[in-house]
Amino acid sequence: MFEDFDHVGIAVAALDPALDEYRERFGMEVIRRERSDAHAIEIAMVGAGTGQVELLAPLTEDSDIGRFVASHGPGLHHLAYRVPDIEAALAQLRERGVPMIDEQPRTGFAGSKIAFVALSATDGVLTEIVEPAA
Amino acid sequence: MFEDFDHVGIAVAALDPALDEYRERFGMEVIRRERSDAHAIEIAMVGAGTGQVELLAPLTEDSDIGRFVASHGPGLHHLAYRVPDIEAALAQLRERGVPMIDEQPRTGFAGSKIAFVALSATDGVLTEIVEPAA
Repeated sequence: MFEDFDHVGIAVAALDPALDEYRERFGMEVIRRERSDAHAIEIAMVGAGTGQVELLAPLTEDSDIGRFVASHGPGLHHLAYRVPDIEAALAQLRERGVPMIDEQPRTGFAGSKIAFVALSATDGVLTEIVEPAA
Repeated sequence: MFEDFDHVGIAVAALDPALDEYRERFGMEVIRRERSDAHAIEIAMVGAGTGQVELLAPLTEDSDIGRFVASHGPGLHHLAYRVPDIEAALAQLRERGVPMIDEQPRTGFAGSKIAFVALSATDGVLTEIVEPAA
């Protein structure tokens, strides 16, 4: 079902200091940066060789990421797997009875199609599937 | 510095039910399984396409993973990056002043050489570097 990881999502308190840290400590550079006012979030994808880390910073305290950072502190937030066809993957998951947060794909970072699996399905690991933009 | 992710570490309460879940829900199969009595831990690497998830289950409640599961619940535990030469990577990290848990490589899963970065360096993300066994 999965091709590879698409990215690992990490919640940070603020984006720019985190980007400086990842660059200076690990030589990881920004691939792309986006801001979503609808989700009150700022996102940067940084590269670790062929791996990708998605740094997520809240724009407001009552956003999803703002609440996550307030309650857990910054840290690992979610794990995203890459699929070649998100509709086919969702159909497979539905067939297996896997509960989903998103029953239908929605638009994610960089024009990708994404869907989140319900936390109850994956024992505390917030799991995302991603079909990258063509 | 990094080639890719080596694996994503996930803490689980018990290994066999978690393996069943990852197989049945996501079609992820076991690549290798190990038990370390020294660390009171049972580990299975499961494949997600070319990605690898390391499931970590405690053998005792007072092990590192036992304490993690007791305080955080099961969930994302650490992020491991693959390096071609762990001695060279450690030298680079030392030069950059990155604090380490392991100043010298130690033996990890499947005969790999590993070292953990101090949590203080990475804003709440437990980070590991891995040189796979030749």
